Amino acid sequence: MIIDGKDMASQVEAETRTRIEKLATQGVVPGLATVLVGTDPASQMYIKLKHSACARVGIRSENVDLHEDVSEDQLLGKIQELNRRDDVHGILLQLPLPNHLDARKAMMTIAPEKDVDGFHPENMGALLLGAEKLVPCTPKGIIYALELLGVKLEGIEAVLVGHSNVVGKPLAAMMLNRNATVQVCHAYTKDLAEHTRKGEILVVAAGVPNLIKGDMVKPGAYVFDVGINRVGDETIGDVDFEAVKNIASAITPVPGGVGPLTVSMLLRQTVQAAESQTNK
Amino acid sequence: MIIDGKDMASQVEAETRTRIEKLATQGVVPGLATVLVGTDPASQMYIKLKHSACARVGIRSENVDLHEDVSEDQLLGKIQELNRRDDVHGILLQLPLPNHLDARKAMMTIAPEKDVDGFHPENMGALLLGAEKLVPCTPKGIIYALELLGVKLEGIEAVLVGHSNVVGKPLAAMMLNRNATVQVCHAYTKDLAEHTRKGEILVVAAGVPNLIKGDMVKPGAYVFDVGINRVGDETIGDVDFEAVKNIASAITPVPGGVGPLTVSMLLRQTVQAAESQTNK
Repeated sequence: MIIDGKDMASQVEAETRTRIEKLATQGVVPGLATVLVGTDPASQMYIKLKHSACARVGIRSENVDLHEDVSEDQLLGKIQELNRRDDVHGILLQLPLPNHLDARKAMMTIAPEKDVDGFHPENMGALLLGAEKLVPCTPKGIIYALELLGVKLEGIEAVLVGHSNVVGKPLAAMMLNRNATVQVCHAYTKDLAEHTRKGEILVVAAGVPNLIKGDMVKPGAYVFDVGINRVGDETIGDVDFEAVKNIASAITPVPGGVGPLTVSMLLRQTVQAAESQTNK
Repeated sequence: MIIDGKDMASQVEAETRTRIEKLATQGVVPGLATVLVGTDPASQMYIKLKHSACARVGIRSENVDLHEDVSEDQLLGKIQELNRRDDVHGILLQLPLPNHLDARKAMMTIAPEKDVDGFHPENMGALLLGAEKLVPCTPKGIIYALELLGVKLEGIEAVLVGHSNVVGKPLAAMMLNRNATVQVCHAYTKDLAEHTRKGEILVVAAGVPNLIKGDMVKPGAYVFDVGINRVGDETIGDVDFEAVKNIASAITPVPGGVGPLTVSMLLRQTVQAAESQTNK
């Protein structure tokens, strides 16, 4: 079975629209502000994707475009301005930033209740402690898809490849919060295949094209491919899709798998932020 | 080899004393305030141990004794008072609290820079993000011991049993920050032995007396037993010490292993907090 990320995202969008209608009865339109520094084409594309998704469900969105030479003070000042605005419920700082800017410091400046990417230490800490509020969108999307698929996480063997701050580490904590048994592998792991073969759930976020071959996957596994690699004219994942699709119970394609799910979680969290700022 | 937690703790204390002497030249005496609610004998014992350790190295310590019927407002007010005091650099709230009090809320009231137990979401989040500041003392003690033993963590197979907020989850993140491959098992894990046998490092924090038998341990492993179980008149760990000591490269006994290491990390973090509050 191919996990259709676009189809799942549509379901999330439908649910999100209902919540937005309810907010409208309270006179509230959820607002998302994105902050983009510089003119990196990939970043511009991601920002565009996020704004079209907002438009589809009825989230008001705006982009703050900053010059690549912007000073740290100016960037932080802009974020603080967005923190103070009542019509902005979610703030998203597009990464990466130019080298002269400190991403960690900028992230910490976003008010935790508006941090729809879930990267603020306070939100990450709540996540680790099992009191999840706003959490990183890719892990959230994977958990959401597993729930939609009816996969029981308690006691399942989950194997994650990649230990980044954005996917691997927060997803490991979220899986543990749901009582999965969790293994986290990465570039330093000695025998990767020995680990991946154990995964009833296998999530790959390594950034290495076709890293995971058919003989590295447990028959019947649920496979999530977070990789987005440009190889020639093609965009491919970290999993050898053609080989693995016949072994796995279910697998996400690239593109059209984890990507749309991630964007849909951003919408969902923006609405969640608007709800909690409205009803506090 | 038996890992002598008391001996390692003495080394930490010696190093801590040197740092305290340096602070004295700046006119600063590190101060720790503990907060104890009620009269639980185990909690009283732990508090006493921590105060004697402070006395040994030259940390000024005081205990705030609160009645078990104390209101939430009174507890939080007391913590805020300690937050404001310049002579208190570290605050430790002894757990568990009586049922009518919200431990999470109380923890969040402690100023992050004085949170020497590392339980505040902001400190937990910084830990998960790889920017460790004040962290939970038991995981910190285990990492410290491994460094003293000269064990290279990069690429090592670490298996943790137990996924609590105090040990398992933060230790998993700390191991990942050091590029270990990490497996986290717990009460919901289907075949525990299959996992534990893979651990070049095995940390057990399950609270189940003698859970780990000899045939569940990889020959040559480093074994850390975090369990403290009263069985009859004896205090025993989660590891069958007599059986495992002949299989492991090194093992911590109970008592006298992880316990003293944990207390020594509390001293170390109190001094660290005093240093950063002095030099900010």
